[in-house]
Amino acid sequence: MAENTDIREYDFSQKHLLGLKEYSREDILFVLEQAKYFREILDRPVPKVPTLRDKTIVNLFYENSTRTRLSFELAQKRMGADVVNFSTGSSSVKKGETLKDTIRNISSMKIDMVVVRHESPGVPYFLTRVVDAAIINAGDGAHEHPTQALLDMFTMQQVYPDLEGRHIAIIGDISHSRVVRSNIIGLNKLGAKVTVCGPKTFMPVFVEDLGVEVSYDLEETLSSCDIAMALRIQLERQDAGTELFPSIREYHEKFGIKMEHLEKYPNFTVMHPGPINRGVEMESEVADSDRSIILSQVTNGVAVRMAVLYLLSGGTRI
Amino acid sequence: MAENTDIREYDFSQKHLLGLKEYSREDILFVLEQAKYFREILDRPVPKVPTLRDKTIVNLFYENSTRTRLSFELAQKRMGADVVNFSTGSSSVKKGETLKDTIRNISSMKIDMVVVRHESPGVPYFLTRVVDAAIINAGDGAHEHPTQALLDMFTMQQVYPDLEGRHIAIIGDISHSRVVRSNIIGLNKLGAKVTVCGPKTFMPVFVEDLGVEVSYDLEETLSSCDIAMALRIQLERQDAGTELFPSIREYHEKFGIKMEHLEKYPNFTVMHPGPINRGVEMESEVADSDRSIILSQVTNGVAVRMAVLYLLSGGTRI
Amino acid sequence: MAENTDIREYDFSQKHLLGLKEYSREDILFVLEQAKYFREILDRPVPKVPTLRDKTIVNLFYENSTRTRLSFELAQKRMGADVVNFSTGSSSVKKGETLKDTIRNISSMKIDMVVVRHESPGVPYFLTRVVDAAIINAGDGAHEHPTQALLDMFTMQQVYPDLEGRHIAIIGDISHSRVVRSNIIGLNKLGAKVTVCGPKTFMPVFVEDLGVEVSYDLEETLSSCDIAMALRIQLERQDAGTELFPSIREYHEKFGIKMEHLEKYPNFTVMHPGPINRGVEMESEVADSDRSIILSQVTNGVAVRMAVLYLLSGGTRI
Repeated sequence: MAENTDIREYDFSQKHLLGLKEYSREDILFVLEQAKYFREILDRPVPKVPTLRDKTIVNLFYENSTRTRLSFELAQKRMGADVVNFSTGSSSVKKGETLKDTIRNISSMKIDMVVVRHESPGVPYFLTRVVDAAIINAGDGAHEHPTQALLDMFTMQQVYPDLEGRHIAIIGDISHSRVVRSNIIGLNKLGAKVTVCGPKTFMPVFVEDLGVEVSYDLEETLSSCDIAMALRIQLERQDAGTELFPSIREYHEKFGIKMEHLEKYPNFTVMHPGPINRGVEMESEVADSDRSIILSQVTNGVAVRMAVLYLLSGGTRI
Repeated sequence: MAENTDIREYDFSQKHLLGLKEYSREDILFVLEQAKYFREILDRPVPKVPTLRDKTIVNLFYENSTRTRLSFELAQKRMGADVVNFSTGSSSVKKGETLKDTIRNISSMKIDMVVVRHESPGVPYFLTRVVDAAIINAGDGAHEHPTQALLDMFTMQQVYPDLEGRHIAIIGDISHSRVVRSNIIGLNKLGAKVTVCGPKTFMPVFVEDLGVEVSYDLEETLSSCDIAMALRIQLERQDAGTELFPSIREYHEKFGIKMEHLEKYPNFTVMHPGPINRGVEMESEVADSDRSIILSQVTNGVAVRMAVLYLLSGGTRI
Repeated sequence: MAENTDIREYDFSQKHLLGLKEYSREDILFVLEQAKYFREILDRPVPKVPTLRDKTIVNLFYENSTRTRLSFELAQKRMGADVVNFSTGSSSVKKGETLKDTIRNISSMKIDMVVVRHESPGVPYFLTRVVDAAIINAGDGAHEHPTQALLDMFTMQQVYPDLEGRHIAIIGDISHSRVVRSNIIGLNKLGAKVTVCGPKTFMPVFVEDLGVEVSYDLEETLSSCDIAMALRIQLERQDAGTELFPSIREYHEKFGIKMEHLEKYPNFTVMHPGPINRGVEMESEVADSDRSIILSQVTNGVAVRMAVLYLLSGGTRI
């Protein structure tokens, strides 16, 4: 509930987006409101607006990423920013330079914003202590992924303009997901009721402290929720030798969303942050059905990131 | 012969370039005519024209490429497009996302065109079924590489404005080449006579069905052709453990173009799609001689791709 | 001493920057003077100037690089150039194309400038023999790294506007450094006194021919120098199995700059081309102290590269 959370007026001129924890309910609603303007721009014949023409942005990705990096880069280029990409492969990181030195060097080149993804929680915050540029968290370990949660909430609002009292189910590997963390924080502030659903082995030990309902029964969850957001199962962890319990087959059987669920429970809408493992988190037909708004999430991601870039670069209410 | 081919009026507003098979003789001639305008632009002090200023293009390369990727990227940037590069190394492909999901996600970000290279034949066609963006094939397996064939024909036209009845020899590994396939299709439509020449082991089993002459004798071929286009020998296949028969030395001896050929047969002009293995497909001096128009192919490649991008983005006759 | 060096009037319309060896004292001072203008631009709210709006530049990096590639790319984009990056990973180099063919192909695409980094000394010079584009050396093996030396001298000038007679110490692995080579050449031309300091195993056999003082005693060197520039120790060489003598611990003990040195010798200023191995070439506190101008070097690097790009693209005195 919004009332239970730490509500502070967020000053956008502080110029960072580290996580939704630092945003108040009003801040979140304000960003989502501004994003509508950029969402409309994306439907124009020329989906561009030269708002960042004078800005230089570095995308600093220490983890592989397709959609997030691409989404940020497109948002930046459509706003006319100068964009430089920097990813681990081609970096001094290999030469043993510390993260602090890397970012201070980049910042010394007179950069306005840094979009950073890193496997370690807290890296974006750390960066704010050592440089002047605005820092945007594009995912830090299992901590937060605030632009993903913002785009998810934006997409939910397209179905339910007011999320107050709405029931959002998040299904899957709850313990390893920064997406779920940022969504829980944000949805709580907007007054939605959140249920996390998945096998016990996928629940964090501190699950009781998340301020959400916990369910181990998919049918029960789907019968009552307005939106069911399935999370990606990290198949990579299996490759790495860690045994997944339950197995992928078992997981799909017990927690995969199936066409029969869509028929049985006609209310809920399907979301997924991507990339989908078709046949694992959901049947392929579910992802492509008219109950799925997964591709809207992708489009909205560009708009929400445009809004964040706009506001953090000093833009005022449109 | 043009009369033997499937001639259909190609509607550029269909917005794809999958292969020359779908282009009529008139379509090909029209693109080549438009390319002349862009070729002239390249000789200006400022070789730019802001025709694609409002467009966003993704270059989606699932195979390594220097010249093709660079040529497309330069064509796009000189036309003012916003360009985002995406190659296998940094992609969700590693996370197991399907090609279909990748492209639908990219397309959901409001992209106008996708230039795609993939090892599997048919991928560009497949993409047209799942997204709205215009798809340009930059090479799909051993299937087609239409912009390469268009730039080859454009370059041939600079020597012989009318290719009708001209004799074009294509020398090398015929069976594994998408370049030769697209060239045969295009040259047939323009009425040129095509001979493929190489060792038997490099000929496809269906060579009789290609609608071309077949020769196993380099001297005979060079004595009668107007243009000799040597194809790159895939030395990589040797590295991969496959034994090449004939050996590289034997290949060069029997099918490499040599300075003595230039003297003996003063008529033919030398082409090569690159990258050249100097000393294999031809003597190094041949590549650098005034009978070679290999570097013109590279320059023309940018112009031809500008024309294709222009037309497929809705541009009208210049 | 400037009088001892080969002083020729450098014609900027020759359009290359291969090394400082080809630049006269006057040329160097001229570039540094022009760079002041661009340095001021970097402090403006909008640090951009559209001087290269009509130029296309390829960054051709055959070696990994963070700061140099980023610095060039930012300089180029802030001047409005069209920029295409090309690095080894995604190149035809893997297909066995010769460097000569790669560069001639790139040049045939109507490129104005090529910024090149390569492990082999002389590659930038070689490129000038085969293409028309202006070539800028971004580091060739252990030979030269002229823009680094120019930015170093620019930064020194901010402390000592006239470097004539100033005492510059360069500390570390002298024998493997292109940075030290270009700095010695440039500083000699500007009339500074240069001392190289490090363990005997890090001195080149021809150290007597460098035209500099040689010292094996850090304390003595620091007691008399105006600027102490520490060079990066190539820890990678250890990984590669080569044993480093002295060990890293021994090196730091004998040649690492420490806080106690700053106290004991209050005169000298600390520089480092980066990336720093904190705790090796210097104590971490030294790098972050107010005696260090290391981050100024990074900022100035962008300005100096803007000046070089400006002048070599035909720009006249500002």
